Amino acid sequence: MRALDFFFEFASTYSYPCAMRADIEAAKRGVTLNWRPFLLGPIFAAQNWTTSPFNLYPAKGRYMWREMERLCEAQRLPFAPPDPFPQNSLLAARVATAVEDEHRPQVARLIYRLEFGEGLDISKPETIARALRSAGLDAESYLERAAQQETKDKLRATTDAAIKAGVFGAPSFVAPDGELYWGNDRLEAALDWAAAFRE
Amino acid sequence: MRALDFFFEFASTYSYPCAMRADIEAAKRGVTLNWRPFLLGPIFAAQNWTTSPFNLYPAKGRYMWREMERLCEAQRLPFAPPDPFPQNSLLAARVATAVEDEHRPQVARLIYRLEFGEGLDISKPETIARALRSAGLDAESYLERAAQQETKDKLRATTDAAIKAGVFGAPSFVAPDGELYWGNDRLEAALDWAAAFRE
Repeated sequence: MRALDFFFEFASTYSYPCAMRADIEAAKRGVTLNWRPFLLGPIFAAQNWTTSPFNLYPAKGRYMWREMERLCEAQRLPFAPPDPFPQNSLLAARVATAVEDEHRPQVARLIYRLEFGEGLDISKPETIARALRSAGLDAESYLERAAQQETKDKLRATTDAAIKAGVFGAPSFVAPDGELYWGNDRLEAALDWAAAFRE
Repeated sequence: MRALDFFFEFASTYSYPCAMRADIEAAKRGVTLNWRPFLLGPIFAAQNWTTSPFNLYPAKGRYMWREMERLCEAQRLPFAPPDPFPQNSLLAARVATAVEDEHRPQVARLIYRLEFGEGLDISKPETIARALRSAGLDAESYLERAAQQETKDKLRATTDAAIKAGVFGAPSFVAPDGELYWGNDRLEAALDWAAAFRE
């Protein structure tokens, strides 16, 4: 079984175009992606970043927003920066954690599309409920599950697993042998590595 | 005339594999690269970075070194990290500034190869002299020119031009219309943009 862990953050801009094409590129190579929502907050806080590096370093931020326009245009994705940026992604990450494995990629893509395609606030339960309903799921039930201790613990465990794997940004990819790739632009290289992996 | 400014830093790891393939990729697209050595030091200092972000953020640093191994293996380039890292790149940048336009790409590639292919210290005049001699140039004469005020001023002007163009890291590329691309992995996209540009 060729598999690749896909660590994504709902506050992360580059995770949006990546999430939209990740499964397609994985299928081309016969690789199964494990979609693992996690939080960058604890990682950034540990290096004394109080907000996104794109806010801390304005030149880098201006570049990122322009590049997002280019990337979304190339992938023909709608693009509307959310306000505020970064969004509080805790609720989205908990809901994506709470849904079943088979629903997670679709729910994640729907949340990303509302956030970066329509500029909606994903910290609001109604935004997340809209994504869940678009996936044909019972929104109230999953919002309840998202608030349960079991979900919170699972999300914390995923963030811990990301840190242990050396993850410092999003999106990131970790192969079964521990090989790490960082960035939307490394998706193909990570999948190629995973496809070539033999146990 | 399709042209692209190529801003590179001798202390920058990713500038090494980029410099090695930049002219080949440019020629494929009929684009002329303007090789512009500059210094990241003033840019990093302005955001209170006292050393490379790869030293400031250890997880990012570990990832970068592993990725350099992967990139150099893929390009079949020798790779030996220099000690200390980052190298003091002032002399190298001044010499690359002092040499004539037609010699600059070759001299830059030779310096990069000594620094990251052999792990030599490029702050030492003898390392730079070796690169100049490998390019068939008179080492003493160019080391003298590197120390002249005219060269120092030109290097400072290039760094100022980079800052004005929005550059915050290396390598970076700036098209005639001001479009900015950052990173070794953006070389092809930047060249494609420049190739499509009409005045």
